Amino acid sequence: MVTKGRLEAFSDGVFAIVITLLAFDLKRPDVGTDASLASALWDQWPAYLAYFVGFLQIGVMWLNHHRLFQQVRAVDGVLLVLNLNLLMWVALVPFATGVVADHLRDGGQNAATAMALFSGVLLANAIRFGVGLGAYLGALGLSFVVPYAALAVHAIMALYYAFDQATVASEASAQGAPPP
Amino acid sequence: MVTKGRLEAFSDGVFAIVITLLAFDLKRPDVGTDASLASALWDQWPAYLAYFVGFLQIGVMWLNHHRLFQQVRAVDGVLLVLNLNLLMWVALVPFATGVVADHLRDGGQNAATAMALFSGVLLANAIRFGVGLGAYLGALGLSFVVPYAALAVHAIMALYYAFDQATVASEASAQGAPPP
Amino acid sequence: MVTKGRLEAFSDGVFAIVITLLAFDLKRPDVGTDASLASALWDQWPAYLAYFVGFLQIGVMWLNHHRLFQQVRAVDGVLLVLNLNLLMWVALVPFATGVVADHLRDGGQNAATAMALFSGVLLANAIRFGVGLGAYLGALGLSFVVPYAALAVHAIMALYYAFDQATVASEASAQGAPPP
Amino acid sequence: MVTKGRLEAFSDGVFAIVITLLAFDLKRPDVGTDASLASALWDQWPAYLAYFVGFLQIGVMWLNHHRLFQQVRAVDGVLLVLNLNLLMWVALVPFATGVVADHLRDGGQNAATAMALFSGVLLANAIRFGVGLGAYLGALGLSFVVPYAALAVHAIMALYYAFDQATVASEASAQGAPPP
Repeated sequence: MVTKGRLEAFSDGVFAIVITLLAFDLKRPDVGTDASLASALWDQWPAYLAYFVGFLQIGVMWLNHHRLFQQVRAVDGVLLVLNLNLLMWVALVPFATGVVADHLRDGGQNAATAMALFSGVLLANAIRFGVGLGAYLGALGLSFVVPYAALAVHAIMALYYAFDQATVASEASAQGAPPP
Repeated sequence: MVTKGRLEAFSDGVFAIVITLLAFDLKRPDVGTDASLASALWDQWPAYLAYFVGFLQIGVMWLNHHRLFQQVRAVDGVLLVLNLNLLMWVALVPFATGVVADHLRDGGQNAATAMALFSGVLLANAIRFGVGLGAYLGALGLSFVVPYAALAVHAIMALYYAFDQATVASEASAQGAPPP
Repeated sequence: MVTKGRLEAFSDGVFAIVITLLAFDLKRPDVGTDASLASALWDQWPAYLAYFVGFLQIGVMWLNHHRLFQQVRAVDGVLLVLNLNLLMWVALVPFATGVVADHLRDGGQNAATAMALFSGVLLANAIRFGVGLGAYLGALGLSFVVPYAALAVHAIMALYYAFDQATVASEASAQGAPPP
Repeated sequence: MVTKGRLEAFSDGVFAIVITLLAFDLKRPDVGTDASLASALWDQWPAYLAYFVGFLQIGVMWLNHHRLFQQVRAVDGVLLVLNLNLLMWVALVPFATGVVADHLRDGGQNAATAMALFSGVLLANAIRFGVGLGAYLGALGLSFVVPYAALAVHAIMALYYAFDQATVASEASAQGAPPP
């Protein structure tokens, strides 16, 4: 059947495409020659923030995916279906990120809806990776009250996990992890 | 000439891009600040359903592709041309999925046309993989009568094949498949 | 420096993305509920034809790329720059294909311009691969006179090279090519 | 943890997608049947120039990435986070390139803003690779004064680094670099 290496390579391909497509959602502002491009670019700051948070989140998911696959000995059918299910949710992150970029500044109900969608997609991924469920659930709830705060929580969580992974990896490396 | 590993890696790349681009067809709703984003997102449910079915179908095609390549000993020119032909049809799935997402709720002739296109593309792929021809042909016919039912048949077939593959793989694994 | 395997994998990635993005240029027709989706899809036939020809052409370029790399022993800087130059022209094929899909049916000068662009991009690639220069040059000239005939020439050339590669590969395989 | 090979393959995937998506920003001109496609294509020359410069720049970044990874012995967490940070800036190049293509011909403040954005993104990448900081800083300053000249500087720098890499690689090859 499918070997572990093939499954990892396929999953890595999906992660690489998803993380790159995030940047594709940065729309070039549609300004004429008499309007200011600089202020139009500046007005897009929610899109840049969403890009930053989305990139970090997918980067951390990719690291988690590798951590999980470290423990995989053989690929069976259940793993294939679970992995496909996981990738299906990972591939939704750019869509959710784009909705946040479009509507965060709307304020009111739409900003809450956008952040709840984003938090919900990240929560669905967190369920699959089994990390930070409580924090993602909290961010989902916060989305309905203070959308900006929910985005900040996601940024902090992504940074936390990125540095957490970094520490784990550095320690493993320092303790003489077996060569690949 | 082209080695088996190179051909598989190239094909895996195409599958990874195609499966990820499905999510790219989820359009962010174009609502102003006074319209409801939540209901606009909700109204897109045919797109989510089409994404789910398309993702499963391409996932199963990827598994079938691997199953077929298990039996390949050497890459010859006929295989190269057949594989290119296969990928050409695989790459059409996001287009057909998008047409279904756009027109399923139109009802009438257009919903039937959209589902027939989707069923036709999946049938063309099934011909190449030699699986479930009868069921895909039935879904194509059903598209003209009850488009929603045809989509349901595709969802059920994709789930069936995913779990079927899962069982085959688990059994192979349990019987001590040779290490990769 | 960069190893041959890395350079091939990177190039394969670009080829896989380019060939898949061709399908992305198939625009979903923008029809309302009272217009016919079927006839709108039908009216897009130049796009399907261009997709078919573009897919074949990039497939053949990918095969040629492998054939060329068979003869590479070491990667030096000249090869790196030449390969980058090659990929830059390969990545232009979807753009040229899209222009043909948009304007082939316009007839007159615009159809000629579109086909000349397409022929020019393929000619630039042919120069790099050193195959069929005369035929591609002829197709470029024909673009200005009978655009449809030029597209037919490109389709025939792609089919010819695909089957030619197939024959070469089969013979090499029959003569006992060394295992990968 | 993540092996060096996996990290390189993931990074290569992102580079391959980013470099290919540059071509995706070449918009097919939206001309009717009575307007001239040829002159519409011609009018897009800033987009072609931006594509050329962007392609070269990302190609050189990819070469620099490989050069840096030659010196990596083990993957630790700090490298993972730094590499993710690098890819986040690499993935912004098509966006910046597209803004230049859109606004270079506007002249005035908008052309300056577009070139400053492009120069800024390339400078951020140069900081990470530690090459040509002064030249990129100079191009950023020049963007505000003579945008076209800044683009020319970027083109010259990319060509310089490409041929510089070529020379380094050729020498290494001539001196008998160890086989991969």
